[in-house]
Amino acid sequence: MGFSCAQASAPLTAAMAEFELIRRFFARSASACPPPQALLGIGDDCAILAAPKGPNERFAITTDLLVAGVHFFADVDPQALGHKALAVNLSDLAAMGARPVAYVLALAMPHANEDWLAAFARGIHALADRHQIELVGGDTTSGPLTVGITALGEVDPASALRRDRARVGDDLWVSGTLGGAALAVAERRAGRGHSVPLAAQRCLDWPNPRVDLGLALAQLAAHGRVHAAIDVSDGLASELGHLLQRSEPGLGARLWSSRLPADPVLQALAPIDQLELMLHGGDDYELLFTAPASARGEIESLAGRFDGVAVTRFGMLEAGSGLVLEAPDGTQRALPARGFEHFGGAEC
Amino acid sequence: MGFSCAQASAPLTAAMAEFELIRRFFARSASACPPPQALLGIGDDCAILAAPKGPNERFAITTDLLVAGVHFFADVDPQALGHKALAVNLSDLAAMGARPVAYVLALAMPHANEDWLAAFARGIHALADRHQIELVGGDTTSGPLTVGITALGEVDPASALRRDRARVGDDLWVSGTLGGAALAVAERRAGRGHSVPLAAQRCLDWPNPRVDLGLALAQLAAHGRVHAAIDVSDGLASELGHLLQRSEPGLGARLWSSRLPADPVLQALAPIDQLELMLHGGDDYELLFTAPASARGEIESLAGRFDGVAVTRFGMLEAGSGLVLEAPDGTQRALPARGFEHFGGAEC
Repeated sequence: MGFSCAQASAPLTAAMAEFELIRRFFARSASACPPPQALLGIGDDCAILAAPKGPNERFAITTDLLVAGVHFFADVDPQALGHKALAVNLSDLAAMGARPVAYVLALAMPHANEDWLAAFARGIHALADRHQIELVGGDTTSGPLTVGITALGEVDPASALRRDRARVGDDLWVSGTLGGAALAVAERRAGRGHSVPLAAQRCLDWPNPRVDLGLALAQLAAHGRVHAAIDVSDGLASELGHLLQRSEPGLGARLWSSRLPADPVLQALAPIDQLELMLHGGDDYELLFTAPASARGEIESLAGRFDGVAVTRFGMLEAGSGLVLEAPDGTQRALPARGFEHFGGAEC
Repeated sequence: MGFSCAQASAPLTAAMAEFELIRRFFARSASACPPPQALLGIGDDCAILAAPKGPNERFAITTDLLVAGVHFFADVDPQALGHKALAVNLSDLAAMGARPVAYVLALAMPHANEDWLAAFARGIHALADRHQIELVGGDTTSGPLTVGITALGEVDPASALRRDRARVGDDLWVSGTLGGAALAVAERRAGRGHSVPLAAQRCLDWPNPRVDLGLALAQLAAHGRVHAAIDVSDGLASELGHLLQRSEPGLGARLWSSRLPADPVLQALAPIDQLELMLHGGDDYELLFTAPASARGEIESLAGRFDGVAVTRFGMLEAGSGLVLEAPDGTQRALPARGFEHFGGAEC
């Protein structure tokens, strides 16, 4: 592990000073940090984590790697990148119903630019503080701009939001709105970067991981009032495909096109284009979850309680296979479960 | 988190098939794996870890990012890369005295090459099996070849091998031999890749993390018979500098040049070149540790017990500052605590 403290005894060469610089951006003074979650934090070969706070709780762990030109445009606002790199991991913890506690950061960059690093650190620390998650270690190196984060949360396995518990008859729910971030990506790829609506750019750059909603859903899951969940990072249809594949055999999904919660920034688009962005876009970082019909009241009561985020019932699970999209006039079409694929060739 | 299972319902496009391919290399059948360490492994938004096995044990966590052209040559044997990417993390766990339990893998590559992936997976799985550490999740993406691993181990915090416990009067010890890997790097950088001795290449490509030795040292540390430890990844002098910096103020180190355990492959070199590679090379992945003089017998009795690895007493800590290298004739020189720096410009 590469995060440690300055070497006091040796004169720093220019290269070492540059390397030190990076560490200093991430090793904050105790007073600037949230209450520590680790017994031993930054500065040793490993960090040592405190035991989870609840007696039945265990650690959930997730990792995500963000690469320039694939997951973000190389000219991204570094503060937004710091935010987003942590946000996508917090979204995975949220989709498990886990409370964030600690993370490690691996950062490769071509050279150490002080302003860039300061902004990146501001973005990541602000989100970390909001969710009381502590940076306990990391590694920095030269290389193509890449951000790898591994995050840990605490969850009671009995209430964890798993992918593999969806059942025939479940309602399909999704938090927030869909398609805003995908619009920003589509406009940039079409060479219309100058005309990306600010609201769409904000969806893309500043996703808000649904941590508190995930915790509330886990409480419902403990009593069988929520069955399964996944976060929507690579498009609703693709993630729904993952849920079906992991859960019991013979499970299909019916989606009502008119119920899908389009982000307001999609309003000016033709309905077909809205659908494409909502179903096969990406970077939404909303929670997709399934629950028995009897739990509708409890779930609707969650709407707006967490950062004002909505929850929308947009379909149901039924005996069958694959995804079916149903229009208001009753016409149906099979839906490919494809989403954003990183080996698909179309890159940022 | 990007590791999950195939989508059963949708026809795979070529791109998705390629993406799936990768997952398949890492999601092994239960029968091929060591006993699971996780309550929930690959395939969900997060993995969920079982509680540590000992009542006083906690999780140690470490992360390392390996970038092509910086940490390894782009033409590296993929099986060796798989081994080494995990080995450097196991080395951090060893330096903490932690028993490996689980890891997550983040992998970026320009395109998915089946043969390359199969070899990489063979290398990483073989080392994982040897140390009974389970792959519980990961993320794969396109991008410049990069391997990020976060590993967890179990350790009793009271016996953990910390960097900050070194004291005046401690003996300095190091496991194994030094400089072999650095010779291979130096020869490659000098354009003599064709003449790298096989033994040196092996040091570079197949480091053997000192996990069992670390566990034995932690048992001694629980009784105050070992004080501090760090793993030697960026050169002995540099790592010793880290130890001094983290421990009590006013601590200096004296190294006896004739006692440093040169790797046999260095024999043909001039003594000054041997010293340079041993002190300021890198990629040794040996354990550097300090212990009271009264513990010499116990430590010497460890020699050869773990993979036949030696332990060598090569210096001592004293009141002072910085590092002093002492030759057999009594002459002394101050030693810069520099090691391999990733922002130093000299890359693979």
